[in-house]
Amino acid sequence: MSDSPVSKLLNHLLKPMARVDDLILQHMQSEIPLIPEIGKHIVSSGGKRVRPLITLAAAELGSAKDMEKASQLAAAVEFIHTATLLHDDVVDESDLRRGNASANNVWGNKAPVLVGDFLFSKAFKLMVGVSRLDVLSVLSSASARIAEGEVHQLRTTRDLTTTTEEYEIVIASKTAALFEAAMEVGGLVSDTSLDRVNALKAYGYELGLAFQMVDDALDYSARPQDMGKATGDDFREGKLTLPLILAFEASNSEQKSFWRRTIRDLKQKDGDLEVAVSYLSLHDSVNATLQRAKEAGDRAKSAISEFDDSPIKTHLINLIDFVVNRSH
Amino acid sequence: MSDSPVSKLLNHLLKPMARVDDLILQHMQSEIPLIPEIGKHIVSSGGKRVRPLITLAAAELGSAKDMEKASQLAAAVEFIHTATLLHDDVVDESDLRRGNASANNVWGNKAPVLVGDFLFSKAFKLMVGVSRLDVLSVLSSASARIAEGEVHQLRTTRDLTTTTEEYEIVIASKTAALFEAAMEVGGLVSDTSLDRVNALKAYGYELGLAFQMVDDALDYSARPQDMGKATGDDFREGKLTLPLILAFEASNSEQKSFWRRTIRDLKQKDGDLEVAVSYLSLHDSVNATLQRAKEAGDRAKSAISEFDDSPIKTHLINLIDFVVNRSH
Repeated sequence: MSDSPVSKLLNHLLKPMARVDDLILQHMQSEIPLIPEIGKHIVSSGGKRVRPLITLAAAELGSAKDMEKASQLAAAVEFIHTATLLHDDVVDESDLRRGNASANNVWGNKAPVLVGDFLFSKAFKLMVGVSRLDVLSVLSSASARIAEGEVHQLRTTRDLTTTTEEYEIVIASKTAALFEAAMEVGGLVSDTSLDRVNALKAYGYELGLAFQMVDDALDYSARPQDMGKATGDDFREGKLTLPLILAFEASNSEQKSFWRRTIRDLKQKDGDLEVAVSYLSLHDSVNATLQRAKEAGDRAKSAISEFDDSPIKTHLINLIDFVVNRSH
Repeated sequence: MSDSPVSKLLNHLLKPMARVDDLILQHMQSEIPLIPEIGKHIVSSGGKRVRPLITLAAAELGSAKDMEKASQLAAAVEFIHTATLLHDDVVDESDLRRGNASANNVWGNKAPVLVGDFLFSKAFKLMVGVSRLDVLSVLSSASARIAEGEVHQLRTTRDLTTTTEEYEIVIASKTAALFEAAMEVGGLVSDTSLDRVNALKAYGYELGLAFQMVDDALDYSARPQDMGKATGDDFREGKLTLPLILAFEASNSEQKSFWRRTIRDLKQKDGDLEVAVSYLSLHDSVNATLQRAKEAGDRAKSAISEFDDSPIKTHLINLIDFVVNRSH
């Protein structure tokens, strides 16, 4: 993806992003080898790192005089994101019973929890270094919302009565809240007007919704690098994502009983994922999900329309198209 | 323990502590039922709640004019502590394999992690509400140290080469750091002198060391309510605590091979705990641990000797004796 909009955004922000990497490595120094090890993993893993990038982009669009504070906050945002990823990797007893322990990593179950806590604390140390209570307020609220959204998602898991509205509440918290906060704090440290901060914030929120909806659509759709096979992680875990909710709402009684067995009872057998994908296709649920993602993307674009044209604005607009149209 | 020093301290601080309970319940309101449920559990569980109590006590000893900020920080300290407890409950695959899943609670493995994250974020929201960057800096550093100490402890687990020095580093981080911070922030919001804040901080640190060493001693010693049986949780988990380190250092080759089998290889059978307790008794390791706890307690008392005599000072001195001499 060397010429993707994300790469172009990264190239545009190479210097403040290099500072983000420095800060990450610096704040993960520790006598305990596991901690710097994970730090290096974050920096070199080649993840898309969209969240820290948009914090920097928001600061530039808000005409920040100095990018140092934005870099510190971008590192904090990446720490929060990585902490939630590590915590999401925690394997439940039920996963083990179903033989899904491979979802876990080489460090066992407890280490990712503790290292996540370490990252989370370091995120707050970085934020405190910026000496802005407004920024601390935004990011601590966002963190609470993420955790609340994850608990909410846990509760809707395997619950086929979950509505599209409830799905949107979950993804607004678990995903959009951090995209929104990432943009908002970038705007706050650029000392632009409140209206503009709110515009940046709205962009982040809608981008987060779009990002998550596309993620959820891709889980059920063919990807070239997987040789046309859906990954089906959400299906296997019984997660109630939008494509599934839409297909269930439209399904006949035979289909409903399939969903009850595979999702509510989580009794799955070989070939079930293929059947699930075919039912989604029958009701066009993946496309309907992607359509909603496109609408969120359009709202994101319109949120920043008031800003003067500039290379960074173009990058942010192209980023929306990339997120909405990506195939992985 | 209705006439224990902890109860007397609680009675003395009844009003600001009631405010702490209010704040806890208020900050755990959520549409997601699991969250307020856990909030009620914290308030009504009847835990000793030493950490929030000493934050309030430090504020009073520092002659705080108004206890509201101290109550907010005491609630934050309790949230951080509860989050670490919830995360410590996470069950590892190896625990499950050994049939130790009972260590886990009714909510499964993932929910405690997510609710812990929620509490942790709420702790920071409460702190931000106090509008003091110095306080935020102290508590975010303490949180990072706790996590680092827990990762460190994980690394020393089953490692019989762990030294007493390494043990002290671990407990300084995983336990003493929060007691220290709890006292320090109470002092900071009372606006007393820096010298006095440092005295309060030293008291908290030494109290934390004493508290943890007594805990580790009790794990191997008979308790009346357990009908004379040690609980042996640390033994079963292969944790390298001070009583075990001291006994291992003094052991002969037969004893060393027992420890290698039961701790390094974690191959334990019925009756092993009793043998372990007898070896500790042979080398007087539990008493040596309690002696070190007493020394830390003496340092805690001397740290606050400069303060004028007052009921709250007496309560804090009695608290040390209680922690050092408790049998559970």
